[in-house]
Amino acid sequence: MTLPDTMQALVQLHDGYADTATGPNINDLSPVLAQQTIPVPAPGKGQALIKVHLAAVNPSDIHFIKGEYGQPRIKGVPAGFEGVGEVVAGDTPLIGQRVSFYATASGTWAEYALTDASGLVPCRPDLAEVDAAGQIVNPLTAIAMFDLVKDSGIDSFILNAAGSQLGKLLIALGRDHGIKPIAVVRRAQQAAALKALGAAEVIVSSDADAMGGVADTMKRLKPRILLDAVGDQFTADLFFAMPNDARWVNYGKLSADAPALHQMGQFIFQNKRIEGFWLTRWMKTADPARIPQAFGEIQDRFVSGAWVTDVAGVVPLPAAMTQLPQVLAKPDGKAFIDPRS
Amino acid sequence: MTLPDTMQALVQLHDGYADTATGPNINDLSPVLAQQTIPVPAPGKGQALIKVHLAAVNPSDIHFIKGEYGQPRIKGVPAGFEGVGEVVAGDTPLIGQRVSFYATASGTWAEYALTDASGLVPCRPDLAEVDAAGQIVNPLTAIAMFDLVKDSGIDSFILNAAGSQLGKLLIALGRDHGIKPIAVVRRAQQAAALKALGAAEVIVSSDADAMGGVADTMKRLKPRILLDAVGDQFTADLFFAMPNDARWVNYGKLSADAPALHQMGQFIFQNKRIEGFWLTRWMKTADPARIPQAFGEIQDRFVSGAWVTDVAGVVPLPAAMTQLPQVLAKPDGKAFIDPRS
Repeated sequence: MTLPDTMQALVQLHDGYADTATGPNINDLSPVLAQQTIPVPAPGKGQALIKVHLAAVNPSDIHFIKGEYGQPRIKGVPAGFEGVGEVVAGDTPLIGQRVSFYATASGTWAEYALTDASGLVPCRPDLAEVDAAGQIVNPLTAIAMFDLVKDSGIDSFILNAAGSQLGKLLIALGRDHGIKPIAVVRRAQQAAALKALGAAEVIVSSDADAMGGVADTMKRLKPRILLDAVGDQFTADLFFAMPNDARWVNYGKLSADAPALHQMGQFIFQNKRIEGFWLTRWMKTADPARIPQAFGEIQDRFVSGAWVTDVAGVVPLPAAMTQLPQVLAKPDGKAFIDPRS
Repeated sequence: MTLPDTMQALVQLHDGYADTATGPNINDLSPVLAQQTIPVPAPGKGQALIKVHLAAVNPSDIHFIKGEYGQPRIKGVPAGFEGVGEVVAGDTPLIGQRVSFYATASGTWAEYALTDASGLVPCRPDLAEVDAAGQIVNPLTAIAMFDLVKDSGIDSFILNAAGSQLGKLLIALGRDHGIKPIAVVRRAQQAAALKALGAAEVIVSSDADAMGGVADTMKRLKPRILLDAVGDQFTADLFFAMPNDARWVNYGKLSADAPALHQMGQFIFQNKRIEGFWLTRWMKTADPARIPQAFGEIQDRFVSGAWVTDVAGVVPLPAAMTQLPQVLAKPDGKAFIDPRS
C-alpha cells in the first residue's frame, strides 16, 4: 500500500493542562480542536501506523482535550485515544491485519494513527467495527475492575454512572457471574432498563429520599466494593453506609464536588479504604497473561451478544467539529468518528 | 494471697455510644464516671485477675468513656484499657508475675482488673512502672505502624499530633532506623524539642503560611506514608501535596472536621489511597511471632533510653475524679492513675 503524505485530523490546539475541572461535557470543540491537514506520522522503532476505520469517543477523551485528564496535551497532535483499523506500516508482524488499539503517539481522530506495536489487539473477523473501535478503554476497564470484585469474594458490588457504556458492561458481568450489581443512576427513567439488564437494585441519586432504602439494601446484599465514576458527596455517603471492609474505588470524576469525609472513624474501626483505578497502571501491573486472555473474553462477549455496544451516532470526520457535540449530548449510547467517510 | 471481696473503681455510668464526636478532651468526669465500691471480678475460663500497680490514661480512654470510641461502653464496669500489675488469680501460669496488659473484661482504673490470659505481657524487672503501665497502646501502635513504614521501603514519612506520646515514639523509631520523620504540630513551641528528638522537618499547622514550604519538603524527602491522628482539612491538603503512591493512614480523630477531597484524580492517576489503622485489628492479622518480638523491642527501647515516657502526673485513684482533668490538660506528657495510693 502506498501511503499518502498528508491526512485529515482533529488536532489539539493546546499543550499541557487547563487548571479547570468541568467534567466530560463539551458544547463547542473549536476552543480546543481544529480540523487540519497534517503529515501522516512515520512509525519509529517499536511503533505501528494504523489506517483508522473507526475511532471511539470516550469520556476520558473529552477530559483530555479540555486539559482535565491525568496526561498532558500536546499541541499539533491529533486527539482520540481509541479505535480500530488496519496496520499499514511499522515495526510489527501484524501488517495488513485489523486491530483494536490505544493510540500512544498520534491520536485516532485522524485518517492515520501511531501507537506502540506491543499494544495492538488483533480482532476476530466476526467482531463488529463499533465493538472493535471501543474494545479497550471501557471493556478492558470493566474486566479489570470486575477482577477486583471477583478476587474479593463478595456477593454484591455497587457502581454509579450505571447507565454509562462502562456501567452496562459491569452490570452484565455481575449478572453473568452471579455477583449482584447495585446500580446508582441520576435519572429514574434509567432504572427499568438497568434492572432488565441485570441490576439487582437501582438507587436513583436524585430522589429526595435516595438514602432512605439504602440501609436495608446494604444489610441484605452486603456490597463491599463501590466502583465510582462520579466522586460526589452522595458517593461518599453511600460509602459510609456500606458494611465493614468496604472499598471505594474511584475511576472517574463526573462531579465537581469535593466530597467530605464525615465518618473517618470507619477507616479505623471498619477497615474501610479509598483507592483509585487507572487502566494504564493496571496494564503495567497486572499478570501479563491476563491481558490477552481478557481480550479473548471481550471479543467472545460482544460476538455472543453478552455485551452490546449502544451507538448514539457515527460522525464522519469532516463533520465532527460541528456534529460531535450533538451526538455526545444524547443521554444514552456511545459516539464514534469515521475518518473514511 | 487472700483477695478482698470489694474494690475501689472508676465505674462507667452509661452503656453504648453517645452519638457525639467532640474529641479526646474532658473537663469533668462526673457525667460519665463515678468512684464506687464494687465486687472484685472473678476470673472465668481463659481469664486472669490482676492487682493493678499503675493504670495508663490514653486518648482512646477518653474517647471511650465519652461514648465516642469504636467499642460500646458497659454501664457499671470500670474504665481504663491499659495498665501494669501482678497476676493474682486465673487460668494462667503467670500468677505472681508482673505483667503489662490490655483489660478486655474489667478496666484498669480500679484496684483489680480482668483480662484474657492470652494477652498478658511479662515485664523485665528493670522496666520502670510508668513504662510498663503504658507498654501496649502507644508503643505497640508505634511499632506496628512503623512496620508499615519500613515495609514500604520509603526514606521518609509524615506524622501529625507529633508532640503526643505516640508521636514521640514514632519520631525516635524513624531516627533510629534512618527513615526521616516529618513532624506536624499545632504549636510552634513544640518544634525545637521534636527536632532535638530526631524530626527531619517540623510543619506547624497553625502558621498562616504552613503549606508554603511543604512543596519543597515533599520534593526533597518524598514521604509516601502519612500517619494521621487528627483527620482535619490540613491533613487532607498535606496528603494531596504528597508524591505518587502516598498512603493516608488514619488512626485517630483529634479534629471534628469532615475533611473534603479536593483532588480525587490523585486516587486514579497518582495511585494514592486512604486507609485506617486499628491496633485491635493489627493484633488479629499480624504474624503471631511479631507480637512477642515487638514487646522485646519495646522493653529494650525503654530500658536503654531510646524511648522515654514523659509523665504529666500520677493521680491516686481516690483523687482521680477531681484531679485527672487538670493533669490531662497539660500540653505534654502522659497521665497515670495509681490505685494503690
